[in-house]
Amino acid sequence: MISSPYKLTAAQVLELFKADVITVESFACSLLDRIHKRDSIPTSDPSFVLSQARGLDNIPKNQRGPLHGLAIGVKDVMNTKDMPTQYGSLIYQGHGPSSDASAVAILRAAGALIFGKTTTTGFTLTNAGPKTTNPHDPNRTPGGSSCGSAAATGGSIVRPASFTAVFAMKPTFNAISPEGCKSIAPTFDTFGFFARSIEDLQLLAGIFGLLDDGAPYNIPLEEVSVTLMKTPMWSLAGPGTISAMSEAVKILRDNGINAGDVCFPPELANADSLMRIQKAITYGEVQASFLREYRLGKANLATEIREIVENTSNCTRSEWIEDFDRYAGMRHIMNKLATNYTVILTPSAVDEAPIGLHDMGSASFNTIGFLANLDQGFHMPVINVPEFVGTHGMPVGLSFVGPRFCDQQLLKTCKALSEVLVLGGGSKVRK
Amino acid sequence: MISSPYKLTAAQVLELFKADVITVESFACSLLDRIHKRDSIPTSDPSFVLSQARGLDNIPKNQRGPLHGLAIGVKDVMNTKDMPTQYGSLIYQGHGPSSDASAVAILRAAGALIFGKTTTTGFTLTNAGPKTTNPHDPNRTPGGSSCGSAAATGGSIVRPASFTAVFAMKPTFNAISPEGCKSIAPTFDTFGFFARSIEDLQLLAGIFGLLDDGAPYNIPLEEVSVTLMKTPMWSLAGPGTISAMSEAVKILRDNGINAGDVCFPPELANADSLMRIQKAITYGEVQASFLREYRLGKANLATEIREIVENTSNCTRSEWIEDFDRYAGMRHIMNKLATNYTVILTPSAVDEAPIGLHDMGSASFNTIGFLANLDQGFHMPVINVPEFVGTHGMPVGLSFVGPRFCDQQLLKTCKALSEVLVLGGGSKVRK
Repeated sequence: MISSPYKLTAAQVLELFKADVITVESFACSLLDRIHKRDSIPTSDPSFVLSQARGLDNIPKNQRGPLHGLAIGVKDVMNTKDMPTQYGSLIYQGHGPSSDASAVAILRAAGALIFGKTTTTGFTLTNAGPKTTNPHDPNRTPGGSSCGSAAATGGSIVRPASFTAVFAMKPTFNAISPEGCKSIAPTFDTFGFFARSIEDLQLLAGIFGLLDDGAPYNIPLEEVSVTLMKTPMWSLAGPGTISAMSEAVKILRDNGINAGDVCFPPELANADSLMRIQKAITYGEVQASFLREYRLGKANLATEIREIVENTSNCTRSEWIEDFDRYAGMRHIMNKLATNYTVILTPSAVDEAPIGLHDMGSASFNTIGFLANLDQGFHMPVINVPEFVGTHGMPVGLSFVGPRFCDQQLLKTCKALSEVLVLGGGSKVRK
Repeated sequence: MISSPYKLTAAQVLELFKADVITVESFACSLLDRIHKRDSIPTSDPSFVLSQARGLDNIPKNQRGPLHGLAIGVKDVMNTKDMPTQYGSLIYQGHGPSSDASAVAILRAAGALIFGKTTTTGFTLTNAGPKTTNPHDPNRTPGGSSCGSAAATGGSIVRPASFTAVFAMKPTFNAISPEGCKSIAPTFDTFGFFARSIEDLQLLAGIFGLLDDGAPYNIPLEEVSVTLMKTPMWSLAGPGTISAMSEAVKILRDNGINAGDVCFPPELANADSLMRIQKAITYGEVQASFLREYRLGKANLATEIREIVENTSNCTRSEWIEDFDRYAGMRHIMNKLATNYTVILTPSAVDEAPIGLHDMGSASFNTIGFLANLDQGFHMPVINVPEFVGTHGMPVGLSFVGPRFCDQQLLKTCKALSEVLVLGGGSKVRK
């Protein structure tokens, strides 16, 4: 008898299903019980989930999918055919699309139990959050935009994963179809996952067909080169992030790993210019993405989104395309730089989660999360490793970044390096 | 009494609604009657359309939208909440999404009568077409992928518009949200419209909020500079396209308009390399876009798409990103070049529509349509002007292209230039 199945990693629970140790139904019960205890606003329907679970238990063993019975929460900006999809917005209250988003359909076809919808800030864009709290401190935010996803398994991906001490991966841009997700800024919109371990991220990467050109391999630690990229926003970093970066370097070097600083490419090193570029592209794309909601009911659209559609800040189209092209050039430079090293190590967030629930982090957080921090920035894959704590005992994550379409190699290298970080005492938060 | 309302342009019919000369219902009747006479496979449900029309007639005048009663056919790769959406594929037979695509919702909110779904090749991608014929010759194809849209009002946008002698516009990439459309290759996927006149294209451009940085203005003809861009595939052009290009130049010059050839930028002038780049990006993106259909039922997926998902041609990811970045650089070069002239004039298709219904045109057509022909190629707005005929009396169109986000200026200039072309005798096909 497994006492707390909800604590298991995906890889572990899949083994138990195979060995007939637990049923999908009993696993689902354990999760529902945990949600009931921890979350005052459950977003899944227990009886529906249980009937789905029993349906999975009834599938003959030889017909089960590779994710058979695995419970997955879906961020509420992705369509689900059997649960409401409300995009964190009043406009879509009760909205129920009849088709799954592409990624949800792929998960379901692999046998996953779509467990419920996790909360999001309004359309992932607004700064006002839902009531979801940080599991490590109910007075703090889990971080936006994926507040619910991050708080449920434990993130927009990297920042909330850092705030809540979970592993998370943002794969290479364009590697997973965004079809059936609310479109916000197509140049940045990227689908990602949160999980309890790197093995679990690997499991999901496989399901989504993430393939490098060559097979990934275990690079001997003495041949690994880690480059530290502090980004042009480094001056904003708080004590938790500063110490996590230096602790990580110390542990890596103590283990014979080559870890050194690299300058941000000079063409990209101007923080103001990065912020301006991100704003011009996002605003231009949001104008098109939200014309529908604006026309159908602007009164219900959050002021900050309405002002973008109305272009109150007078962004020009020529800025938009100039920055769109400049950003394409930057991606090329960053990717080339990334190929010179095994991995890039960079902060996941400015610091620990701030106190207060109604703010997902300052505007500078967002910018850093978007671009300078490489999160949704340069189309490269990013993995948050949650091994550190800040001055208030709250989680601080660090991000490993690799070249585009080297997702599997990044996962493999990251697995080895996070083991080194754990053994080196980096881990002070994860249970 | 209007004898054949189905022949009217959108601008004309909107005037008649305003003046109470005809009702939306009687207009719809006229269109249904015409469809019944011409099309053996109607894709709209007459009684449903008529009830929608009556609903529009019952809206008080002061509450009517700017497109009140205008009948619009929607290509069947865009979701419609009240009609099946089948993407030209067996996999989605009977599929009925519960929400409109963003663009459909915007049209409906403006008062349009969503009249029916128009046919498409399989997911817009396969070369096998539906039974739709060319209205100018039932033995010829209307051209893919938008076979039904092109044949219905008279276009993947520019080629079918050329084959069937209709005006068509592909706006700047990213200016209209693709949400709710089947995602194929997001780097190329662009929403566009077919209409009977440039005024009608202007009407639609307004509804979709296409705005240049400055107000468009009437450039005096003597100040217009038209540059001819024959693309690296010019050697494939047939007699109809060759003569249309030279007739157009003659007419423009006879009217005092500066029209001269420009070399294709040397970095972009290699036809093989353009074809390779287009293939690498498309194949890479199609792999991600169709993983869902592949996992859920590959047996029903067209062989050509299944082979792309299985990567039988062994495209590498490194080619994909290299070409993705190279293509971004090309867009920048082409856009800069376009700003040196009032408009670029370029072929819309290799020649007249070929004989036979089961082939949308050769593979080289597709390539030209995608990239070298600037159709879906460089993110710039394109307008097909259908003023010419080929050696078999079938329509031949030419394309006007402008810089990105100068859609309104392109429309205005194009209107003036197409009037010059008509007066100069270019028009031999349109009724």
